[in-house]
Amino acid sequence: MTVDSPRPETLPDALPSAPEPQRPAPFDWLDEAAARRRSAGLVRTLRPRAADEPLLDLASNDYLGLVRHPRVTRAAADAALRWGGGATGSRLVTGSTALHAELEAELAAFCGAEAALVFSSGYTANLAAVTALTDADTVIVSDALNHASLIDGCRLSRARVARAAHRSPDAVRAELAARAEPRALVVSDSVFSVDGDAAPLAGHAAACRDHGAALLVDDAHGLGVLGPGGAGALAAAGLAGAPDVVATVTLSKSLGSQGGAVLGPRRVIEHLVQSARTFIFDTGLAPAAVGAALGALRLLREQPERAERARAVGRELSDRLTAAGLDASVPDAAVVSVRVAAPEKALAWAAACREQGVLVGCFRPPSVPDRWSRLRLTARADLTREQIAHAVEVLVRAEPSR
Amino acid sequence: MTVDSPRPETLPDALPSAPEPQRPAPFDWLDEAAARRRSAGLVRTLRPRAADEPLLDLASNDYLGLVRHPRVTRAAADAALRWGGGATGSRLVTGSTALHAELEAELAAFCGAEAALVFSSGYTANLAAVTALTDADTVIVSDALNHASLIDGCRLSRARVARAAHRSPDAVRAELAARAEPRALVVSDSVFSVDGDAAPLAGHAAACRDHGAALLVDDAHGLGVLGPGGAGALAAAGLAGAPDVVATVTLSKSLGSQGGAVLGPRRVIEHLVQSARTFIFDTGLAPAAVGAALGALRLLREQPERAERARAVGRELSDRLTAAGLDASVPDAAVVSVRVAAPEKALAWAAACREQGVLVGCFRPPSVPDRWSRLRLTARADLTREQIAHAVEVLVRAEPSR
Ligand SMILES: Cc1ncc(COP(=O)(O)O)c(C=O)c1O
Ligand SMILES: Cc1ncc(COP(=O)(O)O)c(C=O)c1O
Repeated sequence: MTVDSPRPETLPDALPSAPEPQRPAPFDWLDEAAARRRSAGLVRTLRPRAADEPLLDLASNDYLGLVRHPRVTRAAADAALRWGGGATGSRLVTGSTALHAELEAELAAFCGAEAALVFSSGYTANLAAVTALTDADTVIVSDALNHASLIDGCRLSRARVARAAHRSPDAVRAELAARAEPRALVVSDSVFSVDGDAAPLAGHAAACRDHGAALLVDDAHGLGVLGPGGAGALAAAGLAGAPDVVATVTLSKSLGSQGGAVLGPRRVIEHLVQSARTFIFDTGLAPAAVGAALGALRLLREQPERAERARAVGRELSDRLTAAGLDASVPDAAVVSVRVAAPEKALAWAAACREQGVLVGCFRPPSVPDRWSRLRLTARADLTREQIAHAVEVLVRAEPSR
Repeated sequence: MTVDSPRPETLPDALPSAPEPQRPAPFDWLDEAAARRRSAGLVRTLRPRAADEPLLDLASNDYLGLVRHPRVTRAAADAALRWGGGATGSRLVTGSTALHAELEAELAAFCGAEAALVFSSGYTANLAAVTALTDADTVIVSDALNHASLIDGCRLSRARVARAAHRSPDAVRAELAARAEPRALVVSDSVFSVDGDAAPLAGHAAACRDHGAALLVDDAHGLGVLGPGGAGALAAAGLAGAPDVVATVTLSKSLGSQGGAVLGPRRVIEHLVQSARTFIFDTGLAPAAVGAALGALRLLREQPERAERARAVGRELSDRLTAAGLDASVPDAAVVSVRVAAPEKALAWAAACREQGVLVGCFRPPSVPDRWSRLRLTARADLTREQIAHAVEVLVRAEPSR
């Protein structure tokens, strides 16, 4: 470090002191970690895109094709011009605007929940819901493949955490029955982000009801895609408005913005306002993001067919990939994954697609649930049949021989 | 819950079953928690503001008065119109735009750091820095009054956490000397958010240097206010660009936007890209927020006197409050707090100020470092002498008798 220690200039030569232990510099260990990543072929690269990127995008989470819709971007711009560049403070101090309240009311109504609370991200919404709805007297039963933000919420909580087998109401039931804690919270993604498979929510809810547990569903990839008019996975499962069910959503995927929200019974939302650390100690969501999400939500209410269209594109994508001989998943929502054994092959494949003008996601360990790498393709409501056919053609053509 | 369980209609009457244990409904405990808060007088209220709120604002963190500056809001609007309502995905998939890269380069240059990485919030930037720069072989030495996001980062990490007395390089030194772990990270706010007091960064840095530790400084309330032209607390302490020092900042306070960033040596930033969960598994910051922060940063570079002006307003506010007999803190940056014994009095005082047109923050347990409640006043570079005098007059007049 470049700190100057005060050294009086008249000091006589010091006696030779005991040799300092030879310590590495504080961040030297990061170089070793980097070397390990390099030799495992797992280095990730940031690749800033241009505003007029000509690629056919099958990698973003813009399921409804709204992120650049003029009504959405106009709503974002208007909100910034009217309300300012930021929220200026925590939601409990100066960071709540009437625009936040509007979005909360409309989101809750849209999803059939009693109330909603907006956060700066889906990530912080999940941290809030998991930590504030549990305590040392709670067991959290968490699907083994839940999103990182739910896992971090579990780590931050005071509760015992039991991992349940992926998508297994029986495993959930067994953990609930065996528990010693008076309280329990079952936590699951609605649609798992890498493979796009859906959780058995009705089964989980029945297990919860039988065992006096609450259910928390992360509907990040369900909102706007599943349920009538895109009202989400809880609506699809007949669980919207249930007194013991809470959903978290993000505003960053089908709503083309940024931010997150928790939706549920009024007393749950009130409890979050009073106690969730990522609500209380975080600046409110920027007005532009609130505006964009509101704009997208209103558009979706007017054009509910966008939700069904996103699902249909997902099915068509999967059907065509499978017909072409690729190991594609059958989508429960709008995410299709293609399994690839070796991470280097996945990386080379995605790069070859990009060179041929098609952008697909590439997920490698440790961001995948198992040893398989994946190409991850997302359906968008505004993809045409020609674009889908073209994307599949490119994928097939671009596959590396090994 | 409203789940329908399948009940075949032809089933004969069931034998009387063992009575179900009388369980409370899963969220009933929230009502008890709410009752406890009510009787302790600690209920918090969300109060959405209007766009044309006529109050004199001494509660926001808009230290430079930029949140509604036309250049900042215009930059936000333009970014939304050009880039879309959201970033569309994780920074490593589709969520990095050239605008993010621009902001990262300009922030790093402004603060004198080798590199910068932008996050969706200051909160998630802190979670990332603390967790990714530590492991099971690390001790974290954390100031007792650090921000909630740093504390949550400590909880999420695999490291042992040692709490050091507030603002004490000696306490830090003792923990570093006594440690068994090969690695150590000293973590501190630069300016503590409630009282606005500054950390002894030179002392902490010297302790780190002597004991082979790295230093992480949360400069949320220092960026834009401290240091030459607002370059932050590290620049003020001569630590900018030091190889073993990392800063986190927020874009949500003096830069009038939303988001956060980590600033430091290139290998630190690269390590965060590769391993920080709140970077990898979170959607990129929305373009409008990136644009607003860039707009504010460029304005600050052109008008460096805003930083000194924010500090001067803070000093004047404090001087006048003290002269009027109130228990005001002496600000190290732009935050002034007034101690109040009883939370109900603080609440009534803040409410009376609001009725008389002046908005001040009101912090009560458990959001304060001790049993004292606080009125929290923030200086803004654009407050006039008349506004300062008026605010102090209102505060004095509005004080409840007990
Ligand atoms: C399942 C799931 N939950 C939560 C999140 C976090 O949401 P956000 O990116 O809006 O913070 C994501 C994606 O980022 C996700 O895929
Ligand atoms: C000291 C400190 N660090 C971090 C944060 C979090 O930053 P943000 O609100 O931008 O998420 C805040 C305030 O919210 C803060 O006061």
